[in-house]
Amino acid sequence: MKILIINTGSSSIKYQVFSMPQESVLCKGIVDRIGIAGTVFRHEKIGNEKIEIRVDVQNHAIGLEMILDILVSPEQGVVHRLEEIKAVGHRVVHGGERFKESAVIGQETIQAIRDCFELAPAHNPANLAGIEACQDSMPGIPQVAVFDTAFHQTMGPEHFLYALPMEAYEKYKIRRYGFHGTSHDYVSHEAARLLDKPYEDCRIISAHLGNGASITAICGGKVEDTSMGLTPLEGLVMGTRCGDVDPAIVTYLMDRMGLDTDGINDYLNKKSGLLGISGISADMRDLVTAAEGGSEEARMAIEIYILRVKGYIGNYIAKMNGCDCLVFTAGVGENRFEIREKICEEMDWLGISIDRDKNRVQGEMADITGPNSRIKVMVIPTDEERMIARDTYRLSGSI
Amino acid sequence: MKILIINTGSSSIKYQVFSMPQESVLCKGIVDRIGIAGTVFRHEKIGNEKIEIRVDVQNHAIGLEMILDILVSPEQGVVHRLEEIKAVGHRVVHGGERFKESAVIGQETIQAIRDCFELAPAHNPANLAGIEACQDSMPGIPQVAVFDTAFHQTMGPEHFLYALPMEAYEKYKIRRYGFHGTSHDYVSHEAARLLDKPYEDCRIISAHLGNGASITAICGGKVEDTSMGLTPLEGLVMGTRCGDVDPAIVTYLMDRMGLDTDGINDYLNKKSGLLGISGISADMRDLVTAAEGGSEEARMAIEIYILRVKGYIGNYIAKMNGCDCLVFTAGVGENRFEIREKICEEMDWLGISIDRDKNRVQGEMADITGPNSRIKVMVIPTDEERMIARDTYRLSGSI
Repeated sequence: MKILIINTGSSSIKYQVFSMPQESVLCKGIVDRIGIAGTVFRHEKIGNEKIEIRVDVQNHAIGLEMILDILVSPEQGVVHRLEEIKAVGHRVVHGGERFKESAVIGQETIQAIRDCFELAPAHNPANLAGIEACQDSMPGIPQVAVFDTAFHQTMGPEHFLYALPMEAYEKYKIRRYGFHGTSHDYVSHEAARLLDKPYEDCRIISAHLGNGASITAICGGKVEDTSMGLTPLEGLVMGTRCGDVDPAIVTYLMDRMGLDTDGINDYLNKKSGLLGISGISADMRDLVTAAEGGSEEARMAIEIYILRVKGYIGNYIAKMNGCDCLVFTAGVGENRFEIREKICEEMDWLGISIDRDKNRVQGEMADITGPNSRIKVMVIPTDEERMIARDTYRLSGSI
Repeated sequence: MKILIINTGSSSIKYQVFSMPQESVLCKGIVDRIGIAGTVFRHEKIGNEKIEIRVDVQNHAIGLEMILDILVSPEQGVVHRLEEIKAVGHRVVHGGERFKESAVIGQETIQAIRDCFELAPAHNPANLAGIEACQDSMPGIPQVAVFDTAFHQTMGPEHFLYALPMEAYEKYKIRRYGFHGTSHDYVSHEAARLLDKPYEDCRIISAHLGNGASITAICGGKVEDTSMGLTPLEGLVMGTRCGDVDPAIVTYLMDRMGLDTDGINDYLNKKSGLLGISGISADMRDLVTAAEGGSEEARMAIEIYILRVKGYIGNYIAKMNGCDCLVFTAGVGENRFEIREKICEEMDWLGISIDRDKNRVQGEMADITGPNSRIKVMVIPTDEERMIARDTYRLSGSI
């Protein structure tokens, strides 16, 4: 059974086709820079050369048509007719409190996704556009929504409530939701499997360090805490997001810079983080290179980034009173050994040390635990698409 | 030599008269609810009964006159003539980056305190009002400003910079300043003395848990990190302040509640924290009582408060790679054994355990370390007035 996985961002559509239940990937690709000059369409049929097409794509519907066309093309395709695709799985960023797990998409689901627009204005509308484009092009094919927030719905109120008047939660739905749930779910289960320990008996810290970055403490099979909050702005230093700041800074900057609420959100979400501190780049690869070349701004950005991660690891070890396994995943977590090394440096009081040689891996599963470390330290490449495929397969069978 | 210490809040003036260098307190008191109906004037000449006077006081200048009058009164006074007071020490909340230590007050100091008004709009204007009232009533007497932020000026930029565009720091002075510095300074030095270890060799976590609350990591004689930031809003859950929240919540609430920047600051500073969650009280004593009486809201507020403190302790242990001493101080820290017990519960992975019996102290110095604790845990009553008196004595001698 073939399943298409769609991950629609504000200006991109990523996709993969899986053969289930084998979980083998048949093809994958991305239509990037949708609605921006110079759209790039990259496609890889597994076993073939990657191809790259440059073409202007005005909107998500057109982007999706291009993807569906290539799936049935004789050379690069993986099916003869679209009807061979038996289900579509969508990543949806915000499921609010409504979705504690993945859901088959019907009118009610769509309305619920729409209800979460104001909680994730940059993401949910794009996700829904992808769903609606698929409904138009593939009528009658079951579609499943897999939510970034669902995994974190196991958090208790003592962890998800902010110290605000209760009306903020009850009337305005303000609480910690957490994101990257599919990734934290996947790598923490992989970690338990590698530890050969029941998931419910594990205390795991999962550091998803990508362009967006979040860290999650999972204790006894439940999320204990996670660094992203109402939105993906809170927590770690990210590519262009500030993460934690004094909340008074928001209004302080608004007053002094003459910004409205949209203006300050743009400032904190798109101009801050690694890019803001360094003035150079939002990309950790660029910063590592710049720092090696002597850039003090890059070095400072990296140092602030690392201290934030260290602090959260300590925070979560305190809340769980220990930890069995610290997992690094996503772009930076999987690929930048220098960053992992600096995060784990001088952390032996907490029981963390890594083996510097074992740590020199990139993009592959590795146990990088040092000889005297009380906590296992692992690199586990994340695979959100595989998780989405699993849920889509499971749920579409029940339709 | 007699020294008057003045701590002016937005609606109160606290004072003490010290005899120096013996550091003995001759009298102390407060004029509370200035400009609010029902001003209370409490005065205690050490050795005498406390007295309490109810009278309307319209402004700080009138309040100060009442204080100066009682200081020379035959019954309750401690001097015959005001000229016997040889110096006045003032607590000033925000000294910006300008003041790395206490300063003798002249025109330049006053301008610098004024320059920090926008960084501490609720505090610095009141502090300056107290200074100016003293200048008017006691002309020619040397006055000294002791800043809440000065102790934290040893932090390095990797600790005090937020992940914002550098213009935020360079142009708008946005950085972590930290507050309660006089208290953290005092108790951390006391801790080092009790550990019988040079201050520069200690790693200390100082938890100042009062109505306002902050926690500071001090490593090698320097502040490593502290939980309050640009303003005293960031960090721990406080009586009415929210502490850490997703910065996106600020604009989210503004948009939904129709608040301007002043409105949301009021909401986050005065209606949130323990009061906001519980809906009952900002005072931990009330909440402990309510929770014991079965209030779920009070229990939840306390639990959220405790988790926040635990998390910061772990955060700072990670950043310092260990800790020699954890200190509890201020109203809650000194007096609420239940709160200290819950904070230290299940923290043995980090090396923290307390002796439950030793912990049953209130408002007095105590070593409450448990038998197997790698970290000393102490209760050390803070004494900001004594610190202000010391600096005032030292600096006024040099005029």
